[in-house]
Amino acid sequence: MSDTSTFNISASSIDSWDFEADVVVAGYGIAGVSAAIEAARAGSEVLVLERSGGWGGAASMAGGFIYLGGGTPLQQALGFEDTTENMKAFMKAALGPGTDDAKIDAYCEGSVEHYNWLVDAGVVFKESFWGQPGWEPPYDDGLMYSGGENAAPFSSTIPPAPRGHVPQMSGKKTGEQGGGYMLMKPLVDTAQALGVRAEYDLRVQCLVIDQDGRVVGVGAKRYGEDVFVLARQGVVLAMGSFVYNGQMVRANAPRILGRPAASIEAHDGRAIAMGQSIGAATAHMDATEVAFFCDPQLLVRGILVNGRGQRYITEDTYPGRIGQATLFHQENQAFLVIDEAAFEEGSASETSSPELLMQPTWVAESAAELEAEMGLPAGSLQATIEQYNRFAVQGTDPLLGKNQKWVKPLQGALAAIDLRGRTGGFTLGGLQTDADSRVLHVSGAPIPGLFAAGRCTSGVCAGGYASGTSLGDGSFFGRRAGISAAQETSVQNELAAAQGGKA
Amino acid sequence: MSDTSTFNISASSIDSWDFEADVVVAGYGIAGVSAAIEAARAGSEVLVLERSGGWGGAASMAGGFIYLGGGTPLQQALGFEDTTENMKAFMKAALGPGTDDAKIDAYCEGSVEHYNWLVDAGVVFKESFWGQPGWEPPYDDGLMYSGGENAAPFSSTIPPAPRGHVPQMSGKKTGEQGGGYMLMKPLVDTAQALGVRAEYDLRVQCLVIDQDGRVVGVGAKRYGEDVFVLARQGVVLAMGSFVYNGQMVRANAPRILGRPAASIEAHDGRAIAMGQSIGAATAHMDATEVAFFCDPQLLVRGILVNGRGQRYITEDTYPGRIGQATLFHQENQAFLVIDEAAFEEGSASETSSPELLMQPTWVAESAAELEAEMGLPAGSLQATIEQYNRFAVQGTDPLLGKNQKWVKPLQGALAAIDLRGRTGGFTLGGLQTDADSRVLHVSGAPIPGLFAAGRCTSGVCAGGYASGTSLGDGSFFGRRAGISAAQETSVQNELAAAQGGKA
Repeated sequence: MSDTSTFNISASSIDSWDFEADVVVAGYGIAGVSAAIEAARAGSEVLVLERSGGWGGAASMAGGFIYLGGGTPLQQALGFEDTTENMKAFMKAALGPGTDDAKIDAYCEGSVEHYNWLVDAGVVFKESFWGQPGWEPPYDDGLMYSGGENAAPFSSTIPPAPRGHVPQMSGKKTGEQGGGYMLMKPLVDTAQALGVRAEYDLRVQCLVIDQDGRVVGVGAKRYGEDVFVLARQGVVLAMGSFVYNGQMVRANAPRILGRPAASIEAHDGRAIAMGQSIGAATAHMDATEVAFFCDPQLLVRGILVNGRGQRYITEDTYPGRIGQATLFHQENQAFLVIDEAAFEEGSASETSSPELLMQPTWVAESAAELEAEMGLPAGSLQATIEQYNRFAVQGTDPLLGKNQKWVKPLQGALAAIDLRGRTGGFTLGGLQTDADSRVLHVSGAPIPGLFAAGRCTSGVCAGGYASGTSLGDGSFFGRRAGISAAQETSVQNELAAAQGGKA
Repeated sequence: MSDTSTFNISASSIDSWDFEADVVVAGYGIAGVSAAIEAARAGSEVLVLERSGGWGGAASMAGGFIYLGGGTPLQQALGFEDTTENMKAFMKAALGPGTDDAKIDAYCEGSVEHYNWLVDAGVVFKESFWGQPGWEPPYDDGLMYSGGENAAPFSSTIPPAPRGHVPQMSGKKTGEQGGGYMLMKPLVDTAQALGVRAEYDLRVQCLVIDQDGRVVGVGAKRYGEDVFVLARQGVVLAMGSFVYNGQMVRANAPRILGRPAASIEAHDGRAIAMGQSIGAATAHMDATEVAFFCDPQLLVRGILVNGRGQRYITEDTYPGRIGQATLFHQENQAFLVIDEAAFEEGSASETSSPELLMQPTWVAESAAELEAEMGLPAGSLQATIEQYNRFAVQGTDPLLGKNQKWVKPLQGALAAIDLRGRTGGFTLGGLQTDADSRVLHVSGAPIPGLFAAGRCTSGVCAGGYASGTSLGDGSFFGRRAGISAAQETSVQNELAAAQGGKA
């Protein structure tokens, strides 16, 4: 009997199977549940293996955004025009460089259908738009801008539409049931109604490979014991990112090392390494989502400067873009400079992130004084504020194109908030899959019997990010993983029989 | 008989071996020749396989820098103090984030010995220092700053020393024998004198694996035919980067897509994919060296601004740092702004790169006029020049810390050179190896029989770069690959015998 610590083992070394099914799904988050539903609907017997004690994954802890567009019923009901082409253009521009365009095309072309699929499964989107700056709606609104579509530099070239669809929350302000939970719950209910079984407290550790190189199952640990699971049609990996694997992060995405956020510790990269152990290709292993811990209600009302006192991104864009720009391109150095009136106004505004409403780190009567207190290079912040104010009095921002409703000269007493290092996030790179969620070998050919979706794969985001793309591509390509697996021919029953398998 | 298109094949499928040796080295560039020498010295029979018609690889086309320090005889003879600790500190600061510190420690601790090893092998370093701004010495000087050690932000915290060691060139200005050739020639002579054999026009395509998972040879293509080579002790992969593999670049390092430079077309990533096909881990696949096509004699005398008209890196640092900062952090947008007097002076200065002495793209009488002609945001360049001049009159550069010898106010007629997109380079990521050049599986364990060095591996550079680190770690860890391979026990001779191998 082989042990499960080696990432992949030969089927011939397995004495008996502890469980079996047509399609075995590893991980019961958004990608896993979506795969399970579609495989079950296609007639396959489905077993989901989950390392924790219950379903949910990172998805159930998330805000719940799903990035959808091209004219969803919700967008239409709320009066927003969107087209598949505009959605494609935005995603390719904002989520690169190096986007997988075949994947984005499929995702955009299938977006309205995917919305309807979610609704049919019981997910509720309230016909209500939230238009304030923020990370997510504070109440149960169903739609919000979540990628910077309506900010520079995109808004002037690609007609913007909000695409952040949020399942209607219940008691969010009191922490009861957030959008991620309200997304997962009906999907899991749907899966269960379709007969999908689940085994919990079972940590998938390795792939089982037959003599032809086909993936025919997985090995796992349960309470210290090895468990083997036969997958007659295919295995779907849906085990999340690698952000909690320090070694992988250091070797691939070192800037996010030590700053995981919006993730769960189960995201240890095991699925990626399992795939790699049999020659799977990976993509964009350096890419990460980056949260920026400052309330957008403050951000839009000030100017954000780097360690050289220079502005570098429009303050009214999606705060995740600000996080990426700061962590990746400004050495994680950022300061928000704001005047007293704007600070008061921002602090008093309705916000979804009260914990991110911060107090000034420094206050001063002049730019020169503030700059010195902050330790910025002499003259740097002074020049930046002069330049900003010169045009702000006319309500314009030629440097970065901030929307004029947020452009006002900085006047009177000035404050600055120290935002250095206030970033965190999760990894976006992973196994390379095709648009049918088949895991690709480095040769470019699909690996027989192996499918994957969610954050253990490289999805629609190659470099950039928009809120909702992870639950979005996890669910969209999770479904395709389930469909693809259910189309496989069943491995010879003799395999199980010859090895004394139990059903 | 198996074909060689599958990245790895089973030894049992091979009918006969066409060649055999104790240590088989794939690629006859700097890493390959270094591995061959050390394996031969350790008593192994060595065969080098090279896809082109002769030895040399990218190394023989290169300028020839080898990054060495810690007090080499050349540094000492030229009066430069250096220590192993300072070298380590600089490399970890400048070549990150995410450096492999075990590798850098070994590299720095072995640097003086490595210098002596090169000299003993016949490499000549002339006792002459080149101190002008530039990419490389114009003549046959042996030492130069090649990483920005003597520029901000490093020079103030880590005592600088030049570490770019250049083999003495012969007739370089007339293109006869550059530093890279003068490095490779004596090493190849040394290898040949040790009995190292080579086979040319033979393209290595796959690894041959025995039933225990040990690498015991390679498969290759020669004039359309499959060729199999038995490696009794081990295989050393030294086949270069993946910068000419568009698919791999797009998936891993998209910013360098379409802009290979300082490389050769043989760098197609095959060695990396061969390793990946048997579960090898990779690291820093997004990292690239970036050349910046503008003469440093002009750069230091002007101010370099991004697409927002802001300065972003001190103009007197290593130009490869400028290239990386521009391509990775400024969206490949750069302009050099310079006044007439400085332009004349720079153009008249002794340079190693006459082809990079460019003419102004725009000229104007004022910053406002120039900014408008360049299409920069209104007010941006004006603010930058005002800020620069305000301190330049005192000979200081508080923003970026340019050396005061290059700091002068911009006066009179102004010119700007369009440097957008003037970058190119090669990839730095690749197979993960340990400090003994053993290729590591995703499990963290060495893969039996497989060793690698040079640009098909991730070496001392995780994110940053200094000239000489590629030939440096290629030769240093190439040697270790040869030593490690020569320490392996020989595979059972019966393997060859059973399969009717010919010697």
